[in-house]
Amino acid sequence: MIGIYDSGLGGLTAFRELRMRRPDLDIVYYGDTAHLPYGNRPADALFRYGKKAVSFLMNEGADAVLVACGTVSSTVLPRLQELFPIPLFGVVEPTANLAYHISKNKQIGIIATETTVKTGTFSKVLKQRGAVKDFPLPCPLFVPLVENGWIDQNLPLPRLVCEETLKPLKGNIDTLILGCTHFSLLAHHIQKALPGVYLVGAGEAAAAALSATCPKVGRGESKFYVSEAPREFASRAKLFLNTPLSGGVHLAPHNESAPGHG
Amino acid sequence: MIGIYDSGLGGLTAFRELRMRRPDLDIVYYGDTAHLPYGNRPADALFRYGKKAVSFLMNEGADAVLVACGTVSSTVLPRLQELFPIPLFGVVEPTANLAYHISKNKQIGIIATETTVKTGTFSKVLKQRGAVKDFPLPCPLFVPLVENGWIDQNLPLPRLVCEETLKPLKGNIDTLILGCTHFSLLAHHIQKALPGVYLVGAGEAAAAALSATCPKVGRGESKFYVSEAPREFASRAKLFLNTPLSGGVHLAPHNESAPGHG
Repeated sequence: MIGIYDSGLGGLTAFRELRMRRPDLDIVYYGDTAHLPYGNRPADALFRYGKKAVSFLMNEGADAVLVACGTVSSTVLPRLQELFPIPLFGVVEPTANLAYHISKNKQIGIIATETTVKTGTFSKVLKQRGAVKDFPLPCPLFVPLVENGWIDQNLPLPRLVCEETLKPLKGNIDTLILGCTHFSLLAHHIQKALPGVYLVGAGEAAAAALSATCPKVGRGESKFYVSEAPREFASRAKLFLNTPLSGGVHLAPHNESAPGHG
Repeated sequence: MIGIYDSGLGGLTAFRELRMRRPDLDIVYYGDTAHLPYGNRPADALFRYGKKAVSFLMNEGADAVLVACGTVSSTVLPRLQELFPIPLFGVVEPTANLAYHISKNKQIGIIATETTVKTGTFSKVLKQRGAVKDFPLPCPLFVPLVENGWIDQNLPLPRLVCEETLKPLKGNIDTLILGCTHFSLLAHHIQKALPGVYLVGAGEAAAAALSATCPKVGRGESKFYVSEAPREFASRAKLFLNTPLSGGVHLAPHNESAPGHG
């Protein structure tokens, strides 16, 4: 069984791609909605959340986990990989690889959370491949837009936010890495702001790479868990996938204990 | 000692007002940055976080707490008040009262988080005061703007977001309740989007009301705690207050235990 771990809805881009390519796989999804958004969290917190998430997915039967979160993939993934006996796949390597091969002029934009941009992970992989000029840009309002369900292509606010935020990339690049899985949900607006630029989604790229390496055949089952607000997740997910999540969304048991007082 | 509790930076609007009016008071501040933003969290989670925060402030010596968060004030405050032996003050009542008295045409806008708007708390208090026409509007991007430090009056993105989000209120109101304490940090941009409208900040209104009722005189000390990322909080706070927080920002001990695995 494959586990998919994200801070919230973003990993559904990986889920959709993986499910499309591999209808046989069993997939268990965990969205850590209680700690969303991850984009500005310190590494120690991300490590704690990641540990909890991967433990949970393992307990559910996952024998490999796709860390479908650019921020975790860029920061604490190596520490998590040391800790767990099953393979954990990140999004950075496959996404940067794909973008490198697609780009003609090797001028590649990278949009992601603030933390991801600071780590420079996507740029490093691009530069290992060959000579590129990279244009990293943090987009801290994109996750809030998505998690509030403001993704419809007719809405003016996401259009304005994408247009204004992406201005520095105009005219420079032929390929853009969406280095946060959430950003694919805004692809319409991003594409409008940067016409002609090829968009490479991290969730899709990582899922495509993973789908080719998964040997195990399952029964095509899907299970969805979140650490908070399952109904809200289900309704936003439906908006994005254009179909309800089969089997619904369940609340993962949490173990944050609140102290007594007095 | 007075405790101030908020999800993050927003409560600093209350802190600033209270400190200005009462230089004698001892104040201890708790920002629950680990669970920020609160705007879409379910009531059970808010209750858990609130319990932890008030317990912490009591342990630090608070004998009254200002819940300087519109979302908690509008949802689980009564449950928290039942639980604790010290008085807990919310922002809804004093802010709505002030707005009612200031407004001439009794057409009053209310901007807040999605959860707060859904509860209708500000509207209820306004209507208890007398005949008013209220215009509630959720603004889910305002907290992310503030918590990312995008508040400077010369930045185009907060200007655009405020302009677009507040469009439905144009021409209708003479007074606007900023029902989330974070929103005062965007006051410049909000005012530009709604010229001539009187802005009533929840943090300031609640602190002003509280300052008049605090009998205890202290030594004017201030302490700041957050549940995550103290350095980031300190640097954003400096940006907002135009001065560093005296004594720095400390990490409150948390007790979220991450499970082992395997």
